[in-house]
Amino acid sequence: MQKQYYPYETFKNDTRTLLQMLPNDFDTILAISRGGLTLGHALSEALDIRNLQSIQTHLYDETNKREKITIVDTCNLDQSSKVLIVDDIADSGETLQAIYNHLTLTYPLVHFKTATLFYKQSSCFEPDYWVNEATHWIEFFWEVDFKPL
Amino acid sequence: MQKQYYPYETFKNDTRTLLQMLPNDFDTILAISRGGLTLGHALSEALDIRNLQSIQTHLYDETNKREKITIVDTCNLDQSSKVLIVDDIADSGETLQAIYNHLTLTYPLVHFKTATLFYKQSSCFEPDYWVNEATHWIEFFWEVDFKPL
Repeated sequence: MQKQYYPYETFKNDTRTLLQMLPNDFDTILAISRGGLTLGHALSEALDIRNLQSIQTHLYDETNKREKITIVDTCNLDQSSKVLIVDDIADSGETLQAIYNHLTLTYPLVHFKTATLFYKQSSCFEPDYWVNEATHWIEFFWEVDFKPL
Repeated sequence: MQKQYYPYETFKNDTRTLLQMLPNDFDTILAISRGGLTLGHALSEALDIRNLQSIQTHLYDETNKREKITIVDTCNLDQSSKVLIVDDIADSGETLQAIYNHLTLTYPLVHFKTATLFYKQSSCFEPDYWVNEATHWIEFFWEVDFKPL
C-alpha cells in the first residue's frame, strides 16, 4: 500500500477541524498510547481540559491463535463524568473496540465518546468523531520526524 | 516577562538534539501530563519504546498555605527497569521534584532519569538531560496552534 506522509501543518488543520465537531462538555481526555498522545495533548490544550490521561494496550502473540489485545488500565476516572477517548487512526479498529468495551464495562456511570484523525472503512469500530478517511498507509509526523537523518 | 513562541520546527530540532544526549537503554517513557505528552510521544517513537505512559499532578490551593502538589499515580511500572520521565520545562521545578520523589520512593528497584526541553536556572530541580535554558516565558506550539483563530 502506498505510504502517505502526514506533516505537522496538516495535523494542525485537521485538529482544528476535529475541534469544530466536538461538544464542549468533556471533563477528561484519555489518549490511547502511543498514537493518540500528540492529538490528545493538542485537544486538551485547545479545550482547556486539564485532566489528560493515557491508556495502553499490549498485543500478545498467542501461538496458533490470533494476537490478543490486553489493556493496561492506567486511568483514574474517579473525578470524570464525560471522557473523550482519542487515537490517531481507527485502522482495524480492534484497539479502539477493546478499550471502549473495557472502559464502558469498568466505569458504567461515565459517558465515553471517541475521536480520531483517520477512519478506515474496513474498521470494526467507527469513532463518534473523525476527520479523514484513510485510503493509504499514513506515516504520521511523530513516527518519522525525530528519527536520525 | 516577554513571551517567546516555540514553533513545531524548533521543537523538532530540539528533540533531535535531546535524543543525541540520551542513553539508548530506557524501556519506559513516562510523560508528565499535560506538558510532557507531545515530547514523550516523539521520544518514544524515535527510540522505539512501546511502553509510553503518563502521570498527572493536581494543585490544591490550601487557604493560607502554599499550593500543594498531589500526584495522581496512574503508572504501571511492573515491567519497567529504566524509566525516562519527560516534561516540557523545569520552571519552578516543583512538579518534577514531587514526581521524582514519589516515583523513587514507590518504585525503589526502578532507575529513573529526567529530561526536558527547557530548564530555568531558578528551578529547584535540574533534569538529567535538557536542551535550552529558559530566559523568557515559553509559549509552546501545542498551547496556541489549535485554539480558534
